[in-house]
Amino acid sequence: MVLIMEYDGTNYHGFQLQASQPTVQGEVEAALLKLTGGKVRVLAASRTDTGVHAQEQVVSLRTTSALPERAFIGGLNHYLPDDIAVSAAFRVSDTVNVRRNAVSREYHYLILNRTARSPIRHRFAHHVPGRLDVAAMNEACQHLIGEHDFASFATALESRIKSTVRRVQQAEVTKNGDLITFRIIAGSFLPHQVRNTVGALLRVGLGKMTADEFRSILEARTPGMAGPTAPAHGLCLMQVNYPHSWEELCN
Amino acid sequence: MVLIMEYDGTNYHGFQLQASQPTVQGEVEAALLKLTGGKVRVLAASRTDTGVHAQEQVVSLRTTSALPERAFIGGLNHYLPDDIAVSAAFRVSDTVNVRRNAVSREYHYLILNRTARSPIRHRFAHHVPGRLDVAAMNEACQHLIGEHDFASFATALESRIKSTVRRVQQAEVTKNGDLITFRIIAGSFLPHQVRNTVGALLRVGLGKMTADEFRSILEARTPGMAGPTAPAHGLCLMQVNYPHSWEELCN
Repeated sequence: MVLIMEYDGTNYHGFQLQASQPTVQGEVEAALLKLTGGKVRVLAASRTDTGVHAQEQVVSLRTTSALPERAFIGGLNHYLPDDIAVSAAFRVSDTVNVRRNAVSREYHYLILNRTARSPIRHRFAHHVPGRLDVAAMNEACQHLIGEHDFASFATALESRIKSTVRRVQQAEVTKNGDLITFRIIAGSFLPHQVRNTVGALLRVGLGKMTADEFRSILEARTPGMAGPTAPAHGLCLMQVNYPHSWEELCN
Repeated sequence: MVLIMEYDGTNYHGFQLQASQPTVQGEVEAALLKLTGGKVRVLAASRTDTGVHAQEQVVSLRTTSALPERAFIGGLNHYLPDDIAVSAAFRVSDTVNVRRNAVSREYHYLILNRTARSPIRHRFAHHVPGRLDVAAMNEACQHLIGEHDFASFATALESRIKSTVRRVQQAEVTKNGDLITFRIIAGSFLPHQVRNTVGALLRVGLGKMTADEFRSILEARTPGMAGPTAPAHGLCLMQVNYPHSWEELCN
């Protein structure tokens, strides 16, 4: 079964299960245990870090429960806390792999650009009081588009990462009132890649670096060059894209 | 001095001071005491109820503090909790009365209209799973525009309310994706008027009442006819309007 999930990551140590910290996976598996009576392991299409949100995370699981999709959604939402919800459920073949089958992931990073902090925005937007040059940020992020070695946007080289080459399909910075959105779509991302990119883009926006210097960082292929890592709470996984719709895969 | 304030009302028993419950006024006065060393009483242009938010509340106070406006804003935001903030401060004459001088107040009520609840929206939007007819709701709310006796939209007749006649300048229901916004501007409002209006509009949206029946409620002038009172967390005070700008009143 595949679930589409939304969560406010503020109170969680990321998606992935941890022994002694609250995680989204832990909450989902606890709700599944209550609903189905069985221990169920779930897999997320795109793991999110501590404090990162998701509007449409895709999660797969195997269950012997015969509950219809609607009851599954309603039951899980009953047991899940207010800051985690299931918005859709699809019974698909167990051969579906939500991680490997995904063709791209879309992330948004929200920046509130005004002098005063905002109680209404503070859970989902990073507050930057200094005036940001949105045009310069947007120009810089165009260099990300295409297939590149993004080693400079990794925090450190991790042995489990075989290649630091990724393909970015779209990247843009737009402004609406005092809210700035960095939007990026790629096949997949290195750990912390989006937040390190935002850190470098903020330096461009504040006039501390030019769009050309931003490109030089990319070309240097040296971990730690980009950043500083922007705070987690501005980041949201918006969507995971597949070559099919879930409806058409349903048994 | 006049302060423009923003707050997430989730954790407060409204604006107005209460002996044993957390209130926005209580937090602001505590921050003022820390900043200025003096007991200061504040007055809000539009009192908000328990759980109601404000994007631009206007608050006045008298202080002997000689701190410049910028330091006042920075200092208060330092002492205030994350869910309350000052966005601007203006030193104006003590004869200014933020309540009586206001010419109108604008409130928004947000409704999330989709099957699944939303962790990202749940603090600021009332979740209605049943499909709402936005055109019918917008048609009904046009009857509110103009000067009317809004007694039917009061929860009960309170002796402190001398007249239930109010002038509504604008009212509309619009939709953007699965978010529906009810926007209303009036000189002032009866207690619970906006939430009772939303309660009646939701009955229209769900097809339980026609726009004509909505008008009949208005014409009946009987407290308790509208409603049920929609939940507080969808409501936000957006703006208080004055015949002047605060900049032009500054000494």
